[in-house]
Amino acid sequence: MPDKKYVYLFADGAAEGHGDWRNLLGGKGAGLAEMTTLGIRVPPGFTLSTEACLAYYALGNRYPDGLWDEVLTALGCVERSLGATFGEPNSPLLLSVRSGARESMPGMMDTVLNIGLNDQTVEGLGAAAGDPRFAYDSYRRFVTMFSNVVMGVQHDVLEALLDEAKARQRVTHDSDLSAEALRDLIAVMKARVQDVTGRAFPHRPWDQLRLSINAVFASWHNDRAAAYRRLHGIPDDWGTAVNVQAMVFGNRGEDSGTGVVFTRDPSSGEKYLFGEFLPNAQGEDVVAGIRDPKPLTALRHRFPGIHAELTQVCQRLEQHYRDMQDIEFTVQNGTLYLLQTRSGKRTAPAAVRIAVEMVHEGLIDSREAVMRVQPAQIDQLLHPMIDPQASLQVLARGLPASPGAASGQAVFTAEDAVRRHENGARVLLIRNETSPEDIRGMHAAQGILTARGGMTSHAAVVARGMGKCCIVGCRDLVINESAGYCRIGNQMIQAGDALTLDGSTGQIILGQAPLVAADLGGDFAELMKWADSFRRLAVRCNADTPEDADIARRFGAEGIGLCRTEHMFFAEDRLMAVRQMIVANADETRQEALAQILPMQKDDFKAILRIMHGLPVTIRLLDPPLHEFLPQALEEIGELAAYMRRPAREVRRRVEDMRESNPMLGHRGCRLGITDPDIYRMQVRAMMEAACELKREGIEVELEIMVPLVGHVEELAIVKGHIQAVAEQVIQATGVRLAYLIGTMIELPRAVLTAGAIAREAEFFSYGTNDLTQTALGLSRDDAGMFLPPYIDRQILQHDPFVVLDEEGVGELIHMGIKRGRGSRPDLKVGICGEHGGEPLSVAFCHRADMDYVSCSPFRVPIARLAAAQAALREEAAAEEGAASHDD
Amino acid sequence: MPDKKYVYLFADGAAEGHGDWRNLLGGKGAGLAEMTTLGIRVPPGFTLSTEACLAYYALGNRYPDGLWDEVLTALGCVERSLGATFGEPNSPLLLSVRSGARESMPGMMDTVLNIGLNDQTVEGLGAAAGDPRFAYDSYRRFVTMFSNVVMGVQHDVLEALLDEAKARQRVTHDSDLSAEALRDLIAVMKARVQDVTGRAFPHRPWDQLRLSINAVFASWHNDRAAAYRRLHGIPDDWGTAVNVQAMVFGNRGEDSGTGVVFTRDPSSGEKYLFGEFLPNAQGEDVVAGIRDPKPLTALRHRFPGIHAELTQVCQRLEQHYRDMQDIEFTVQNGTLYLLQTRSGKRTAPAAVRIAVEMVHEGLIDSREAVMRVQPAQIDQLLHPMIDPQASLQVLARGLPASPGAASGQAVFTAEDAVRRHENGARVLLIRNETSPEDIRGMHAAQGILTARGGMTSHAAVVARGMGKCCIVGCRDLVINESAGYCRIGNQMIQAGDALTLDGSTGQIILGQAPLVAADLGGDFAELMKWADSFRRLAVRCNADTPEDADIARRFGAEGIGLCRTEHMFFAEDRLMAVRQMIVANADETRQEALAQILPMQKDDFKAILRIMHGLPVTIRLLDPPLHEFLPQALEEIGELAAYMRRPAREVRRRVEDMRESNPMLGHRGCRLGITDPDIYRMQVRAMMEAACELKREGIEVELEIMVPLVGHVEELAIVKGHIQAVAEQVIQATGVRLAYLIGTMIELPRAVLTAGAIAREAEFFSYGTNDLTQTALGLSRDDAGMFLPPYIDRQILQHDPFVVLDEEGVGELIHMGIKRGRGSRPDLKVGICGEHGGEPLSVAFCHRADMDYVSCSPFRVPIARLAAAQAALREEAAAEEGAASHDD
Repeated sequence: MPDKKYVYLFADGAAEGHGDWRNLLGGKGAGLAEMTTLGIRVPPGFTLSTEACLAYYALGNRYPDGLWDEVLTALGCVERSLGATFGEPNSPLLLSVRSGARESMPGMMDTVLNIGLNDQTVEGLGAAAGDPRFAYDSYRRFVTMFSNVVMGVQHDVLEALLDEAKARQRVTHDSDLSAEALRDLIAVMKARVQDVTGRAFPHRPWDQLRLSINAVFASWHNDRAAAYRRLHGIPDDWGTAVNVQAMVFGNRGEDSGTGVVFTRDPSSGEKYLFGEFLPNAQGEDVVAGIRDPKPLTALRHRFPGIHAELTQVCQRLEQHYRDMQDIEFTVQNGTLYLLQTRSGKRTAPAAVRIAVEMVHEGLIDSREAVMRVQPAQIDQLLHPMIDPQASLQVLARGLPASPGAASGQAVFTAEDAVRRHENGARVLLIRNETSPEDIRGMHAAQGILTARGGMTSHAAVVARGMGKCCIVGCRDLVINESAGYCRIGNQMIQAGDALTLDGSTGQIILGQAPLVAADLGGDFAELMKWADSFRRLAVRCNADTPEDADIARRFGAEGIGLCRTEHMFFAEDRLMAVRQMIVANADETRQEALAQILPMQKDDFKAILRIMHGLPVTIRLLDPPLHEFLPQALEEIGELAAYMRRPAREVRRRVEDMRESNPMLGHRGCRLGITDPDIYRMQVRAMMEAACELKREGIEVELEIMVPLVGHVEELAIVKGHIQAVAEQVIQATGVRLAYLIGTMIELPRAVLTAGAIAREAEFFSYGTNDLTQTALGLSRDDAGMFLPPYIDRQILQHDPFVVLDEEGVGELIHMGIKRGRGSRPDLKVGICGEHGGEPLSVAFCHRADMDYVSCSPFRVPIARLAAAQAALREEAAAEEGAASHDD
Repeated sequence: MPDKKYVYLFADGAAEGHGDWRNLLGGKGAGLAEMTTLGIRVPPGFTLSTEACLAYYALGNRYPDGLWDEVLTALGCVERSLGATFGEPNSPLLLSVRSGARESMPGMMDTVLNIGLNDQTVEGLGAAAGDPRFAYDSYRRFVTMFSNVVMGVQHDVLEALLDEAKARQRVTHDSDLSAEALRDLIAVMKARVQDVTGRAFPHRPWDQLRLSINAVFASWHNDRAAAYRRLHGIPDDWGTAVNVQAMVFGNRGEDSGTGVVFTRDPSSGEKYLFGEFLPNAQGEDVVAGIRDPKPLTALRHRFPGIHAELTQVCQRLEQHYRDMQDIEFTVQNGTLYLLQTRSGKRTAPAAVRIAVEMVHEGLIDSREAVMRVQPAQIDQLLHPMIDPQASLQVLARGLPASPGAASGQAVFTAEDAVRRHENGARVLLIRNETSPEDIRGMHAAQGILTARGGMTSHAAVVARGMGKCCIVGCRDLVINESAGYCRIGNQMIQAGDALTLDGSTGQIILGQAPLVAADLGGDFAELMKWADSFRRLAVRCNADTPEDADIARRFGAEGIGLCRTEHMFFAEDRLMAVRQMIVANADETRQEALAQILPMQKDDFKAILRIMHGLPVTIRLLDPPLHEFLPQALEEIGELAAYMRRPAREVRRRVEDMRESNPMLGHRGCRLGITDPDIYRMQVRAMMEAACELKREGIEVELEIMVPLVGHVEELAIVKGHIQAVAEQVIQATGVRLAYLIGTMIELPRAVLTAGAIAREAEFFSYGTNDLTQTALGLSRDDAGMFLPPYIDRQILQHDPFVVLDEEGVGELIHMGIKRGRGSRPDLKVGICGEHGGEPLSVAFCHRADMDYVSCSPFRVPIARLAAAQAALREEAAAEEGAASHDD
């Protein structure tokens, strides 16, 4: 006898498995074992474990020693339980074989029903049921299904034969074919299968069973299943369990039927039995769409006793599993059988409502409620969405870069967006790709659509920051900017035509689709309050404007972790002065331009600091290369030259001279602070004056000044010297005592390596994981669109590293930097302000890395709060588990 | 009494210091102590140690306890030795105060002579010497020097008074002024000093001494000295020693004089006394250029006794120090005094000749000879150089990017370079900056000059690779390409005009300067043979052409560490096919183009592998982004479109689509191998067919196939699969058994972090330190020219990190990658193929990091060989020292 046990029986109110052995038995197998143990009526059967599956793969698709013996033994028990024998010509036992992985992968893997039928047993089944037509219909279904799933015959090959038979018999419905007609059809089908495959249709029930099990094992590796796993982050090496179970028949007459029921409404979360029932039918008929299922009330009317029993079973299962259940059942000749129970999939609003109501019902505690809602899901709740009832004309799809939905007039230039917006129109900005020069247009627009770029292109990042809906990389979009139209798929769109974007799905919809607004109160607010009570990580926001700061505060942000000052430079009222400052060769002209910008920047800071009163605000000194602010079009260069009263040729030459081959790695960040210290001095003066004036008004200010792109401690030391000099001047001049911190971004590998030295100068670290990912991986965010998609398809990378933090690479750098930084400054404050700060997996990483806070775009603040809470709860659970195992 | 000793006496044939206490006493002080101990006649004196200097700085420019007492005590000994007293009016002792750091910093710091003179002592000096004019002249010199050095009076202020005095007396030479005239002049000077500085000229000798010592301490921090240290890599925190010594006078009459002598010719290395002598003069007269010094033969004629004594002393010092000495001496009234001895600076040819001849003389061993030549210096030996005798019209200077000298006609386009070259002309290519499209022009040119770019710009890197002389970043160069001329400084240069470039100094010279050729035999060959016997690191070359490979082999390369395949793509005969391959949308067209390129690439490989027979050759698969090969000019796009028979608009659009924001971080390296595997397949086929065919001819081939830009082990695994598949096909088809290695570049931080996993797939690592520096520091090599120079000026960085490896950042990554890589594959072969592989400090790092080899451009191979030998010898010495200290 082998040591290993591969097969787990469930029959007669007892099961060898348990409900929490999902890893071993799969979700379905664990549910069947659990229901059996609970005394719920389940057709008896057994589960081949995932270990059996993996052993089968490991042996090159052969059964490990002992597996088949265990199958025979378990089948013997099932036979005894039902008093019927598999393969026995009189009153034969029939079996189903179903896949069942750890996580539900609906419809992805294979199923075979009615196994055990052949030309002999079909007669026995007919006699026992008193219904030969039923028996032959079951046989016909079996041959069709087995040929397709196990023998690889295309579906339409046998469908065609069925259609021919119906034509020959002059009938419309399958159910109109007589037993004889079906028998003839089956013979034709088997002959055809042999023709196509070169193999005979197996006659012996044992062969049928074995081949079906093998087919389910193999189906784990089919393309559909592999794609689903990739999409849902399910590892390839889990394998699937296989459930072999006695057949029950919902098609044994008018007192039979089949159905599905949810214990609560999966769309709204409301508590009532929600489901469908199809009388005299097998489950596959529902799938095939041959007949429309009826609502559950039909069951109540027709079989009130069954309905009452089902209601009680549902309650029991929900209580038992303490979660909303998705249940499959079959009624055979007036007897209710449960075929499956699992936690039901649900929409975001339903997830929140169910979690909160279950706490109120005492079914779960608030910890569990917080774990029940997927952080990524709640993004949907924060934005307006397209009315789910609306029917839509979808023109094309792009990448869903920033969620929410928006309708408006199509425009193709930032200028047009601004103009129409000023005239009161709602507009959607459509561009090949966006650049910093489009910022004003993006602000004016309701949503943004681009033909190029990926999830972390300029458009995507800026739109998420603004909380605007955005679709990028739409390959079916061709823009003719100068002619003022574009083509989306086959549809020509003129400037001004109405479109709707769904940034949550990537759909581009013709016309104005009806939208529904977000509701942040009620259950949602309650759930978030619980989440906040569990988390250790603080959650801040990335906000560059008072509007952003305001939204973020309403979404629960506990400060600003990144206030970029460059977007302020693009505002129309100062762009000319900014450009003059950059292009000026003479120190005097530059000083003059800076003096012009100072009061405007001060007002910006004042507005933001006022909104965030009492909370920390991290302001980053200018980061992008100066050439990003310069015009490229000849006409604009001319305007600038005229404004500066310099020859256009000279200005053009200067613009050209400043161009860089790799701006990402160029003259930016604190490098500007070293070569052009006056810009930083102006910014520090603006923020310090703003802070001191507010403080004098009695408003609390917690200012944190952040130096970007430090790679060497000396850079920080020099810039810090400039900051302190100006700050002290302002403090002296205003007489206001203001404490402030000076810290740095950690976004270069060299900064990580020398974090010990840098922390001696820096009072806080903020990981700029966008740039740290770019440098650590040598990967330009703007250019990765050409090769990242195939990388993810081929699983070279599990995720887009600009979306989900690359823990193996960038994550190790983060750990290293924190360790070294806190090694020389134990109370070093550490946060993250890259895009990853609002992505749940990455937030969990930040929690584990022992950061103090994450910072993300305003609309991701609730997601980060929830993800941070879950990370803390998961850690708590792991600690308890560790303590428990230690007690043993 | 303080514990610390700060002052070290040397007098009467005994010294408290030793010759090898350079760190404590400075070079000069150690030399004086040593000479004194040897019994050589040195004016008595004492040295304030560098520790005294550092203590003085640490106390905010105040003397530490006990220092002044030690000075007084030592001065007492000097007084007793000479029987004269400092400050005594009759026959006073006069002193000099001179700086002396660990490393000689000639002329950088301050000196004060004739200290101790005032209106009283000057009379005593005059009486004792029997020459009042001499005494007043010394006094005048002292007042001038002290006012300038100690009191900060500009030189010309007192010079003007001297000139006025001479005018008043109607004399031309200083020496024509009488004692009385000098006395009056001194009074005027002192008054003037008080006017200018607000302080009286100090009368008391002790004040003069103290202030002079302070001034020398302070001079360590003057701008001149700081700049010199930066240039020569001398740390700021060494400080300087101060030597206080009794004055002797070379200006005491016709039996006096002063001179400098080298024990061997510092220019050629030839063994004879080489020097200059100036009768009746002080050393400063030589510096001031008032009188021309005479060759040493003048001394022999005038004072054969002194000359014989000097010859003997020189021999003795050279024997004692076992190195060529640079000696200062003074003859006072027929007595020879030695003032200084130090190892003499020398040219590269002299360094080699002296080192080798000293071995033959039995003075040093071959280990020491190898340590005596600076690796960077020998670069000069490998290239033709401008005849040092020639007089030159230098138009401007740029950065000396690639050494050697070249003359030729100025040309402004690659096409013109090729055309004139084909007509037999020697040309110099002059461009704003170069790009890969200029490669053919660069090949055709003798030298390259650019207006923009830094030491590691495209032009610099490629030129060094080609061993061609190159000057980059010449700010005084303005090119008008279309008009066919340029302006260098004030000179207009037409296409075809003759210029000479000196890539070793950065000088641009009008006309054709005379050149002298390199000689690699004789002493040089002998020295390199010794070096090779000591080193552990192998030295390979970076070579892309048979020509490069040939040069490198002659220079002693032990293989090719980097053969870039992209330069081959630019060759005229295949560029069109390459472009077609890139632009082709249809797979068929692409295959066709690849089939066209295959035989050409195969021939390239064959030629290189044939030259390198028996040595390993690492061929890197295509690395740059494909768009680098595409034309940008409309005309060229049109040509390509015509060649491909496609509409120009379509080709232009494709070219535009392929542009990248940050090509350095873009779609390149193994990313191409994943998305466009056919290119790599073609390359592997070409190299394997080449290798197999050669092997069949009986030529030994050691092929190493290198995959660039790996960041994730999966990338390497996939590309490796492709390589192996093609390689096996070729091996099968040819029937030749060929072993080959597959390895990877390590040039991304993520590759370092995951080196353990990558080493499971890679048989060797080659550090691409150019890209690793770019990514680790977030620094674009092409764009750093804007801010790196101020970074180095301000010592934020000690060196340009693209020239000298950044050990703190990139170096730690290299250590980490080697540790992790060898952790999973103990016999992993590790090398470096970045530009750093030929830079001596970086080569030493590679040795310490336990790499197997370095690879560098052909002309740097001898440098790397020497640097590797020195690293090994240094390690050996440290180990011996460690063992010795362990024995204690």
